[in-house]
Amino acid sequence: MTTRPPAEIGMSLDEVDTPALIVDLDVFERNLRRLADRVQGAGVRLRPHAKTHKCPVIALKQMELGAVGVCCQKVSEAEAMVYGGVKDVLVTNEIVGRQKLRRLMALAGSARIGVCVDDPAQIADLETAAAEAGVTLPVHVEINMGGNRCGVEPGEPALALARRIGDAPHLTFAGLQAYHGSAQHLRTWDERQKAIAGAVEKAAMTRDLLSANGIPCDNITGAGTGTFEFEAASGVYTELQCGSYIFMDADYGRNLDRDGAPTRQFEPSLFVWATVMSRPTEERAIVDAGLKALGMDSGPPTVWDEPAATYERASDEHGRLGITTATNRLKLGDKVKLVPGHCDPTVNLYDWYVGIRGERVEAVWPITARGAVY
Amino acid sequence: MTTRPPAEIGMSLDEVDTPALIVDLDVFERNLRRLADRVQGAGVRLRPHAKTHKCPVIALKQMELGAVGVCCQKVSEAEAMVYGGVKDVLVTNEIVGRQKLRRLMALAGSARIGVCVDDPAQIADLETAAAEAGVTLPVHVEINMGGNRCGVEPGEPALALARRIGDAPHLTFAGLQAYHGSAQHLRTWDERQKAIAGAVEKAAMTRDLLSANGIPCDNITGAGTGTFEFEAASGVYTELQCGSYIFMDADYGRNLDRDGAPTRQFEPSLFVWATVMSRPTEERAIVDAGLKALGMDSGPPTVWDEPAATYERASDEHGRLGITTATNRLKLGDKVKLVPGHCDPTVNLYDWYVGIRGERVEAVWPITARGAVY
Repeated sequence: MTTRPPAEIGMSLDEVDTPALIVDLDVFERNLRRLADRVQGAGVRLRPHAKTHKCPVIALKQMELGAVGVCCQKVSEAEAMVYGGVKDVLVTNEIVGRQKLRRLMALAGSARIGVCVDDPAQIADLETAAAEAGVTLPVHVEINMGGNRCGVEPGEPALALARRIGDAPHLTFAGLQAYHGSAQHLRTWDERQKAIAGAVEKAAMTRDLLSANGIPCDNITGAGTGTFEFEAASGVYTELQCGSYIFMDADYGRNLDRDGAPTRQFEPSLFVWATVMSRPTEERAIVDAGLKALGMDSGPPTVWDEPAATYERASDEHGRLGITTATNRLKLGDKVKLVPGHCDPTVNLYDWYVGIRGERVEAVWPITARGAVY
Repeated sequence: MTTRPPAEIGMSLDEVDTPALIVDLDVFERNLRRLADRVQGAGVRLRPHAKTHKCPVIALKQMELGAVGVCCQKVSEAEAMVYGGVKDVLVTNEIVGRQKLRRLMALAGSARIGVCVDDPAQIADLETAAAEAGVTLPVHVEINMGGNRCGVEPGEPALALARRIGDAPHLTFAGLQAYHGSAQHLRTWDERQKAIAGAVEKAAMTRDLLSANGIPCDNITGAGTGTFEFEAASGVYTELQCGSYIFMDADYGRNLDRDGAPTRQFEPSLFVWATVMSRPTEERAIVDAGLKALGMDSGPPTVWDEPAATYERASDEHGRLGITTATNRLKLGDKVKLVPGHCDPTVNLYDWYVGIRGERVEAVWPITARGAVY
């Protein structure tokens, strides 16, 4: 059903059916250029995370502006990127299971495909699969930067894995995956700065230990939209993996800059376009975008057009907006732009981006890695 | 990418790629029959909600067991159902906007399509669209049962709308939409019983007022998996809209029966099949199912195979399980069944059901209304 897009090129925004995932192209392009400009001259590479957008069209735009490739989290995401023309993908994740490894190796025949490990058994399985497929794979050791998710501890445990990778005939040690996810949404600049200072220390210590043991480590990759300025200036990180900067979201919008004001280096470009479908009381407007149209894990969306309205509660297909006298409109049939609380899981609910320039639909891009969880 | 299913018929469960949406067919069929049996003889019709499963294959199975049709929330869901062979759909929702109304009327040419209203403007627009399309549409008045979402207040406001429907040449007044959503997850039997007693009173009062004003009201439709036994026994409700009973979920599993024990009338049949992809410490196992593989709005999933393990935290593509000495396994590469916190938004993340009988894949069903938000 949803193979049909909710809009056609040339339509006015008002005609776009709801809920739809709208990208304000002027803002989006400004965000893209802004990070590209900041990275240029900082002596680091940019490898944006495609888990945010899941769309090869956007990946290629990022690469046109200087990105060396993209990151993915899943083999199926990497497939979507490679099939869409991206020739350099780092899977910033551990890949476990025979089918996934076979598919990963098949991709490695037509693109540069990197992957991460945090266990000797993963290395053994990667070696077997790479040998079977007759490919050589660059492998990163993931180190735990404090998020306590995947990754070995910095230092000796990372060295032990790097040695094993070096011993595997079809694998090459390609560096450290050193992403500090839990630092991205620390609210103050000082907190983020301090967290990344700790990450930089761990990464540098591990790099130096590897080097002292005859294993050169010329790639330390990590960083996100919340902290990249620290990694970029560290002299240790060599590659940045920012993803959300292209869209921003309500949660990232709550991060504070050095001066204590909400961050403004990137602006919201991604919206869920929704219709007021019921207006049962003065205090209540119901929109047609609920849990199946918005990622709610980082809080509800904000109402871009009517900041005085509050998205109070989501059910599966409905959102309840609280209305006050400060709210100007929101009558039955009105359409509004909602800024998602969290962009990544929101994008994953849609098959199409509707790109608008001003009030006109200029682009309709397929989200080919939507639902690519395996 | 995800047009490729994660399994093939005849595979063993162990071979199914992860994350995948698994249905235990024995349990699923037992749930289907159990509600069909309970409804039969209670003098009410069953019209299950298809927003739960989004799959015409399942809708037709429900109708084979006596359901009169299905409910949907969205026009695009109704399209998926009608195109999949369902001939009777009630859209339990207000439909606003010219494109949606045209699509709704197109469906009404080949199936019985009902719809709800809570505003005179919706009635005027429905009449215009029905007249244009040359169809006659059954229209329900939605009344607010206490959930404070859509719906007019019971009594006079409902009468006013029913009159307007009756005055519209291409619409027929078809009854009351009287679903009490917020009662479904009240934890104790007494709380749910009391909430539905109030709903029954409001519905009966409205029905009697309509009748006293010459408007017969022979259909009062509502009820969900948490409360249907009360509506079924009310003598007022004529149609039940249960959806989740086919799958159950961790949240419904926390409802208590009359005896204060967790409800057992339906059993979990829906699981997210996930792989342990990282095992960095004794206390931590990371699975490959996070926010893009699980609806987390009603809490995290439970671990079906290893109840001693706790799904502690979800990020976009990862789930962190806390492990204790009471946990028996969960080594790298192990696969586990997770019971989603909330089935509806979880289903909406997947394109395929993998139906298993014992440890063997018996069915792979497309979720054709996945992403059908408009």
